[in-house]
Amino acid sequence: MKLSELGEKKIVSALTKGLYTRDFVTLSAGLDDAAAIHRLGEEIVFTSDIMFESSHFPQGMKPEEIGWKAAAANISDVAAMGARPIAFLASFGLPPSLDLSYVRAISRGINDACRAHQCPFVGGDTKKAGELTICGSVIGACPSKSALLRRGNARHGDVVCVTGNLGDAACGAQILLKGKKLNPQADKKLLRAFLKPRAQIKAGLALSSLGAEIAGMDITDGLFYSANEIATASGCGIRIHESMLPFSEEARKFAHSILRASPVRILEWGEDYELLVSMRRKDFPRAKAAVEAAGGRLICIGEAIRETTVYLDGEKVDVHGYDAFLAKR
Amino acid sequence: MKLSELGEKKIVSALTKGLYTRDFVTLSAGLDDAAAIHRLGEEIVFTSDIMFESSHFPQGMKPEEIGWKAAAANISDVAAMGARPIAFLASFGLPPSLDLSYVRAISRGINDACRAHQCPFVGGDTKKAGELTICGSVIGACPSKSALLRRGNARHGDVVCVTGNLGDAACGAQILLKGKKLNPQADKKLLRAFLKPRAQIKAGLALSSLGAEIAGMDITDGLFYSANEIATASGCGIRIHESMLPFSEEARKFAHSILRASPVRILEWGEDYELLVSMRRKDFPRAKAAVEAAGGRLICIGEAIRETTVYLDGEKVDVHGYDAFLAKR
Repeated sequence: MKLSELGEKKIVSALTKGLYTRDFVTLSAGLDDAAAIHRLGEEIVFTSDIMFESSHFPQGMKPEEIGWKAAAANISDVAAMGARPIAFLASFGLPPSLDLSYVRAISRGINDACRAHQCPFVGGDTKKAGELTICGSVIGACPSKSALLRRGNARHGDVVCVTGNLGDAACGAQILLKGKKLNPQADKKLLRAFLKPRAQIKAGLALSSLGAEIAGMDITDGLFYSANEIATASGCGIRIHESMLPFSEEARKFAHSILRASPVRILEWGEDYELLVSMRRKDFPRAKAAVEAAGGRLICIGEAIRETTVYLDGEKVDVHGYDAFLAKR
Repeated sequence: MKLSELGEKKIVSALTKGLYTRDFVTLSAGLDDAAAIHRLGEEIVFTSDIMFESSHFPQGMKPEEIGWKAAAANISDVAAMGARPIAFLASFGLPPSLDLSYVRAISRGINDACRAHQCPFVGGDTKKAGELTICGSVIGACPSKSALLRRGNARHGDVVCVTGNLGDAACGAQILLKGKKLNPQADKKLLRAFLKPRAQIKAGLALSSLGAEIAGMDITDGLFYSANEIATASGCGIRIHESMLPFSEEARKFAHSILRASPVRILEWGEDYELLVSMRRKDFPRAKAAVEAAGGRLICIGEAIRETTVYLDGEKVDVHGYDAFLAKR
């Protein structure tokens, strides 16, 4: 059967069956944002993300921004595990017709993102390709298996939180892709959220340091999609309350006056690099204190429930994220 | 300036200048087969290799063989550092028109190679792409910084060795690509060397365990190319003696009777997964004993010299490997 008839989930599921493993592998392919390998008493997390110009780098994105985003996407997967990134590799596929200055600008963008996240940029590979391709790989470290923020760690009754404002990046994407505009100052902030996202390393580390059982993942594929991933992996559901969702003033205004929609409607577009986390209610006060002490925020947006469904207030949410393999275009 | 006017070396050099690093990074981009990060008293080596159907997977290669080779190429870079591979990730770019069974067969080939090299296959990424793309990433472990087999570790007076027969894989490539044939039994052996190469992990580990200063890299890009890499990184030259080069009976016959050439002429085609190593003469006997105790071979093929040139007997060797960016096709 052709991949275009199956969609990403089924492809991944077919590709990750029966993989060779050994006893020091803590987390293997499939479920979490990164694999984890037990090594000398700690967990080495390891993840990779591949991007192609035709799908992932919209027209209008500068090469520095392409590089930044490729690095940040990988580093965010490490942050989502509650680990500290320790090294990044970039493997490039490059059309020979590209200008060196363009490729250097991409590399500079990667390097800037690595510096901003204190993650050394240690190498990679360079090959000829028909299409600009960037495959980033990153390793990180987490002190113990129990500290990892696994998708399957949510339990009904949990408090469900995010680490910051939602929707800014989706608005920024509309500015870049559709030329929509609110006002120069707001546009700049929203564009920046889309083009130069920051991985939530400090929040992830603050949470993993608590010694509590906490579920986490980033919401780059959309809040509801991620909520469903955590719910499915944990065997529970999640109820999100619209009134509790944190939006910036700019995102609210952009949604209402430019997109003529409630800001909650743009959350399925993803692109935010905040974390979605779920923890026991008793752990929430010290988790919030720890994240705030690290300079971040922890905002309760709902709770985990017994029924295996994602709700926005009373309504079931469509949790099917965008699927490039199924998309007709 | 366009990449097609520069070639790979200049591109890589431009992309690896001034990368963000930190004090725990032992080896960064550029010189060696892998980066190395100091962590809890050991070295974590980390490398990535990207392959595209149009350049790297010749017609006639089965999907299992594509997968095997993608994994083995990465694992060989870890072996060349004297490290033990501990986890492998594969990120795929997949045309939606591909059949799932084809992609599963690639994944099976990767998994088989991972099992053969005792390296867990722990995950990766899957994206839509115009061209079949496989980016492998691997981490490995080496007990200490001084144990790493670095390209720059050669010194004039060194013994220069390889870990096994040369040219089998290049003959196998001719069988697959050009339909040339010697006899069924020989063809099978030579094809296998090209399609299912084995990384020299045990030999690499045996050498790194000696506590001696040893240079190493694999010779997948060609023996003379690799000799020049080690020579350049070490600030010396290498003299190789044709009479000392180990060829299998099959490669000798194939070269002479099918290619009408001396077998040394096919070594620039690369594809062998043996290691090229350089060590102090005093360390050679125990190095040979250690590699043989691990089930491998260590064959002296020449010596490192003061003059910064690679010689085959008395002649300077053309050390420019194939450059996909400069190639006119």
